[in-house]
Amino acid sequence: MAKIDTILQDLIIANRILAKEEVVDAYGHVSIRHPDNPKHFFLARSLAPDLVERDDIVEHGLDGQPVRDETRALYLERFIHAAIYEARPDVQAVVHAHAEDVLPFGIAQATPLRPVIHSGSFIGAHVPVWDIADKFGDTDLLVRNIDHGRDLARSLAGNNVALMRGHGFASAGRSLIEVVRISVYLPRNARALQRATQLGGEIKSLSKGEIAARAAGYSPYSSETWRAWQYWATKAGCAQLLTRPDEKHEHKH
Amino acid sequence: MAKIDTILQDLIIANRILAKEEVVDAYGHVSIRHPDNPKHFFLARSLAPDLVERDDIVEHGLDGQPVRDETRALYLERFIHAAIYEARPDVQAVVHAHAEDVLPFGIAQATPLRPVIHSGSFIGAHVPVWDIADKFGDTDLLVRNIDHGRDLARSLAGNNVALMRGHGFASAGRSLIEVVRISVYLPRNARALQRATQLGGEIKSLSKGEIAARAAGYSPYSSETWRAWQYWATKAGCAQLLTRPDEKHEHKH
Amino acid sequence: MAKIDTILQDLIIANRILAKEEVVDAYGHVSIRHPDNPKHFFLARSLAPDLVERDDIVEHGLDGQPVRDETRALYLERFIHAAIYEARPDVQAVVHAHAEDVLPFGIAQATPLRPVIHSGSFIGAHVPVWDIADKFGDTDLLVRNIDHGRDLARSLAGNNVALMRGHGFASAGRSLIEVVRISVYLPRNARALQRATQLGGEIKSLSKGEIAARAAGYSPYSSETWRAWQYWATKAGCAQLLTRPDEKHEHKH
Amino acid sequence: MAKIDTILQDLIIANRILAKEEVVDAYGHVSIRHPDNPKHFFLARSLAPDLVERDDIVEHGLDGQPVRDETRALYLERFIHAAIYEARPDVQAVVHAHAEDVLPFGIAQATPLRPVIHSGSFIGAHVPVWDIADKFGDTDLLVRNIDHGRDLARSLAGNNVALMRGHGFASAGRSLIEVVRISVYLPRNARALQRATQLGGEIKSLSKGEIAARAAGYSPYSSETWRAWQYWATKAGCAQLLTRPDEKHEHKH
Repeated sequence: MAKIDTILQDLIIANRILAKEEVVDAYGHVSIRHPDNPKHFFLARSLAPDLVERDDIVEHGLDGQPVRDETRALYLERFIHAAIYEARPDVQAVVHAHAEDVLPFGIAQATPLRPVIHSGSFIGAHVPVWDIADKFGDTDLLVRNIDHGRDLARSLAGNNVALMRGHGFASAGRSLIEVVRISVYLPRNARALQRATQLGGEIKSLSKGEIAARAAGYSPYSSETWRAWQYWATKAGCAQLLTRPDEKHEHKH
Repeated sequence: MAKIDTILQDLIIANRILAKEEVVDAYGHVSIRHPDNPKHFFLARSLAPDLVERDDIVEHGLDGQPVRDETRALYLERFIHAAIYEARPDVQAVVHAHAEDVLPFGIAQATPLRPVIHSGSFIGAHVPVWDIADKFGDTDLLVRNIDHGRDLARSLAGNNVALMRGHGFASAGRSLIEVVRISVYLPRNARALQRATQLGGEIKSLSKGEIAARAAGYSPYSSETWRAWQYWATKAGCAQLLTRPDEKHEHKH
Repeated sequence: MAKIDTILQDLIIANRILAKEEVVDAYGHVSIRHPDNPKHFFLARSLAPDLVERDDIVEHGLDGQPVRDETRALYLERFIHAAIYEARPDVQAVVHAHAEDVLPFGIAQATPLRPVIHSGSFIGAHVPVWDIADKFGDTDLLVRNIDHGRDLARSLAGNNVALMRGHGFASAGRSLIEVVRISVYLPRNARALQRATQLGGEIKSLSKGEIAARAAGYSPYSSETWRAWQYWATKAGCAQLLTRPDEKHEHKH
Repeated sequence: MAKIDTILQDLIIANRILAKEEVVDAYGHVSIRHPDNPKHFFLARSLAPDLVERDDIVEHGLDGQPVRDETRALYLERFIHAAIYEARPDVQAVVHAHAEDVLPFGIAQATPLRPVIHSGSFIGAHVPVWDIADKFGDTDLLVRNIDHGRDLARSLAGNNVALMRGHGFASAGRSLIEVVRISVYLPRNARALQRATQLGGEIKSLSKGEIAARAAGYSPYSSETWRAWQYWATKAGCAQLLTRPDEKHEHKH
């Protein structure tokens, strides 16, 4: 399978996983940077992620526009992806979504979202909250152009996740598998923190050292990481698209 | 497809979507105004929305009665629809439902329901709470006649949603797609507000300017709106009923 | 269909509905009084409700014992049913279950469970909390004999529902459809009250007059009641067992 | 069926049940001690529990290593199982999982997790919270070697469940059915306690006498216990793997 075909097939899997895990619904999207051309990235046309297939994927440039003639409607908020790829050469994949249980932390800012469970460590020690109104005043809250996108990317800075007030979040990863994993565990970590806060008393968050230890040990194609990707794809009904041979037939040597 | 057939098929889809998204269960209903006769509207006979088919839809007048001989049982609360269509010429579609997570805001009135997430903006800046007991004293809480319906419509006034204390809500839209969207995101917005309230501190609601900016940009048949309708219909298992060609085959020019 | 066959088939439907609606899981049970012999009732043998079929149903007497030779294991807590039928000649059907969202109200007794939504009205104005420890001290909390059952029935008195501290609830209805409806809406009413309490401020419960008005209007075989039964049976995958012709073919006169 | 085959088939069922009941997802695992060799135990290779089949199960020693040549990746945290079997000769089966609703009690330690519902009694009167940082400082929180495992086992001591701060829990049972049951009801008990705490006022936990009475009456192959196992296996789609004849054909004498 050609490298580009593998990547696009992985992107379809990522779309299906994010839908099945309720990170996205009709809205939200996931992209991957072009492996050979860092100034391009792949993102579906305007379509619910669960319905995305191969011919729905469109190659975009860092201005957020399609690099070839395109007559189909595109995601209004494709500038989230463009601006993050522009600002962050280390980032290979981006998710934007509205996962419900993350939203309260962008609305009630008394409780900063932070990792409290080990699987949430990849959101990073600091999760900034970006408010589009700070710079742009009253808008429809959508990241409709590259200026909006760049302002969001500035807020994200070197972090992995930025909350978007009253809207959702953007997450950035070093690989597609990593950004999906961050995005799936972000709501879970949010729920654990929400409920721990309700119980009262001191909250034991992950220490900076723990967050660093986990980040250091992370490899996107380790057994542990693949295990989740394989499981999620199976749950989402697209195990047949997996681009790596089943571990049942994979040996260590 | 004749215009009236398209509308009735859309109404069936709306019934299925509202059931799948758990806005309605055995109870709750959705109607659409007759496109050629504003004094009539279409609403199913007394049946769980998920089970509604073409021959279950009954044409009603603004008195809440069927316009033709009808021997089957009708929804007791059809007067909600009749009275709102009577009072609001701008309204083309109405939903009444008991979506669980909206209920607390009609019971505990210390926290007014208001938009806190962008997808919740369409509920509007003000969501009145109607209490049937204020005018009618002890009842079974059902909107059983046109007087009840008119009192609810007065409380709704020019807003998009009225909560009904201890019962549910009524929502009114400029199109069927809009009223379904309002009704699906209303519980989500309620949950986000509920959880943000639990986190404590200041709640950042959408500003009036943001709500207005979103309302101004709304178009019931935009790519973004259709994307959700198509996705929800697919989830609800009735994609084959969609009355608009798949965007895969739709070009902009 | 003979009357007894109809009743047993309805009882199977009730078992499936309660499982699908997550009122029961592997545990919990539903019974119906014998229509011709008020000293007998029908209840499954020890089996998860979702798996109950016709030949799993056992006829019991008011002592909680099977009226015919029975070699299969029976529900340990069949005495809940026996004692309620014994004490309450008006009761035709009984449910015992552990529905999760009802449990907090038996554990934290500061907030009495009461109807706050119209569909919850049938739990009645007063929901006593029975604590087996009050009379029997340290037990395994199970209603293992007729003495336990009678103590619970005394606590239930003339009400429709009794909570069982740290365990679940028992509900009693004038018909099978009614007791299923009470049991399905009990957790929903509990959740609405729980969340309303979190929002703070005054809670508007249903008034006694409203509860009475709803009880007065209730008929187990009305269109509205049947609508839910038909819908729930369809969801539970047993619409084919419905013992009443589809309303599509039912005319009022 | 040979004893060892029965045990391995039960272990597959346990994997599927824990996945279906959302105790585990891609992560988490369940093991059983070798019936003839208490120094060995059976645990899957590194694979999501829902996907585990017969040839994925690997025999491990009490050092946490496979007892035969093994080229496939193993669970990093297999030392949880090894250390508990080493320290606790009474334990026949172990689960490690991250069930979401248990997590808050390891993070916010003001509210000790304890049995508040009868089905939660098997977690035992005392549930210690183990914090890997107490002894090992900043780690990635994983139980990566036998020293980590032994420290956890010391914290577990003679109890049935230990919470792992910011990570999950480990549970230990006298049989596979028991440890699955503990693990399924642990999150339910946690939710009931969480919600009861929100309601405020005095919390009525199970008394020590009640916990003891329930433990005394427990038998892993009673009708009541089997009923749940059979139901869960059916829900998880693997009823055909059940190793005991259906009770429909089982007579008491």
